[in-house]
Amino acid sequence: MWKMKDFPGVFPRILGHEAIGMVESVGEGVNEVAEGDIVIPCFMPDCRECVDCGSKKSNLCSSFPFKISPWMLRSETSRFKDLNGETIYHFVFVSSFSEYTVVDIVNLVKVDPEIPPNRACLLSCGVSTGIGGAWRTANVEAGSTVAIFGLGTIGLAVAEGARLCGATRIIGVDVIPEKFEIGKKFGVTDFINSKSCGDKSASQIINEMTDGGADYCFECVGFASLVHEAFACCRKGWGKTIVLGFDKPDAQLGLNSLDLLLSAKTLIGSPFGGVKPKSDIPILLKRYMDKVI
Amino acid sequence: MWKMKDFPGVFPRILGHEAIGMVESVGEGVNEVAEGDIVIPCFMPDCRECVDCGSKKSNLCSSFPFKISPWMLRSETSRFKDLNGETIYHFVFVSSFSEYTVVDIVNLVKVDPEIPPNRACLLSCGVSTGIGGAWRTANVEAGSTVAIFGLGTIGLAVAEGARLCGATRIIGVDVIPEKFEIGKKFGVTDFINSKSCGDKSASQIINEMTDGGADYCFECVGFASLVHEAFACCRKGWGKTIVLGFDKPDAQLGLNSLDLLLSAKTLIGSPFGGVKPKSDIPILLKRYMDKVI
Repeated sequence: MWKMKDFPGVFPRILGHEAIGMVESVGEGVNEVAEGDIVIPCFMPDCRECVDCGSKKSNLCSSFPFKISPWMLRSETSRFKDLNGETIYHFVFVSSFSEYTVVDIVNLVKVDPEIPPNRACLLSCGVSTGIGGAWRTANVEAGSTVAIFGLGTIGLAVAEGARLCGATRIIGVDVIPEKFEIGKKFGVTDFINSKSCGDKSASQIINEMTDGGADYCFECVGFASLVHEAFACCRKGWGKTIVLGFDKPDAQLGLNSLDLLLSAKTLIGSPFGGVKPKSDIPILLKRYMDKVI
Repeated sequence: MWKMKDFPGVFPRILGHEAIGMVESVGEGVNEVAEGDIVIPCFMPDCRECVDCGSKKSNLCSSFPFKISPWMLRSETSRFKDLNGETIYHFVFVSSFSEYTVVDIVNLVKVDPEIPPNRACLLSCGVSTGIGGAWRTANVEAGSTVAIFGLGTIGLAVAEGARLCGATRIIGVDVIPEKFEIGKKFGVTDFINSKSCGDKSASQIINEMTDGGADYCFECVGFASLVHEAFACCRKGWGKTIVLGFDKPDAQLGLNSLDLLLSAKTLIGSPFGGVKPKSDIPILLKRYMDKVI
């Protein structure tokens, strides 16, 4: 365990916990980082030792399973109290809203201090999730058509990831028309304002635009209804729907069983875009510094 | 269009439409087969020309889309009448219950007449579906653990396919205990009688046996409830559930949206096991003749 001090002035927290910080002190047995190191706190644990962390196929650490927990993972304790002495929970292990926090080493990624912190911090959640969804989970093929439901940070990063993978058509769906201009910077080629579809659903329009559906559809909001929409417009035969959005705990997906079989479609859950924090975030940051991204 | 004469005495129809036949006559424009050829009628069309038939990723012919149709695909007509002159539908295009039938060339696979017809006929549905599910759709990795719900023809063929792919543990689930001995011949290593699980579900037992779930789970019956069971015991992080069973048209799957995301599992519909009839069935028959299978 050890403490982390936020980097003053440069921590845009676009999804609530994106952050970057400097190590103030290090607990016993921690050799991976030292005082003064620059680190990204990441809600996805990565112990680098368990069967999952050692596998290329998984990013779900089995030694420290991710949960929407009120506590720190290893100790099951909190290091925060309010003015009345009442316990304050650690939000997704990192509690990066605070200026000082205590974070388990499995939730920290050491980064090159040369990298601008106002860029590096973005990799702690939204941007990694989106790029990873296209890159690690879907492994989008060059020449593909992609549909993205929701052009927030995750959706825009999916567009960036899909563009880098060589997708040639990237359809963004959002309720805010201004997102098209923003999206173009990330690779979005077509836009559907889902509030202006008339009698049709966005999925119907995408099926028509693409003559049968997109090769990959990404749900980037966290609504079961949008998973249904994404699934409805991924291409029969090989289409994949990748779920990146964080839905409410009791939300249910309802799929027709025979339709799933006869459409030969695939539905994939992709937490943090399949990104392994300690090995993949440095790759993405290096690509940024090398101006590949 | 052309007629097919059943091969007398050697057509076990284990799923209702497995068959083999001899071409009696050929319609205009058909060059792929000739009178006297031995053919397997297959409910999955394969035109060999459309974008799907030309793609390695799909086995869903888009020129002649599969449907549970009352008619022949190309002509939308029937060639059968009963004694009162009433139309009799073509069952999944091939109507292989009859001694004579008329089948579209897209639904026929020419086979080497050297291959025993009582073996070759099995490839027209169940065996291809099962082996294909493991081989083409899941592409089971060597060393994997596999769970199979339902040890009928499809499930036993999944075991065979998984064994050929190098799976080291193959868990069969069935309500008939005798299926274990039969299953062993196809590679089944462990058996769960789902009627004798006590307070536990088969998925709970599999999660315990495998310390977290099987790498690949196959639903081979056609019950949404078994898809749920299969999904519940495929390994978080990388587990895949492959749906091969043909459910009722109105059957619904219900999945928790957040569980799908956080488990990083994959759900795949696999009609005919992802097998492309005209290219893959000859591969399987050659492997049988070469004694690889």
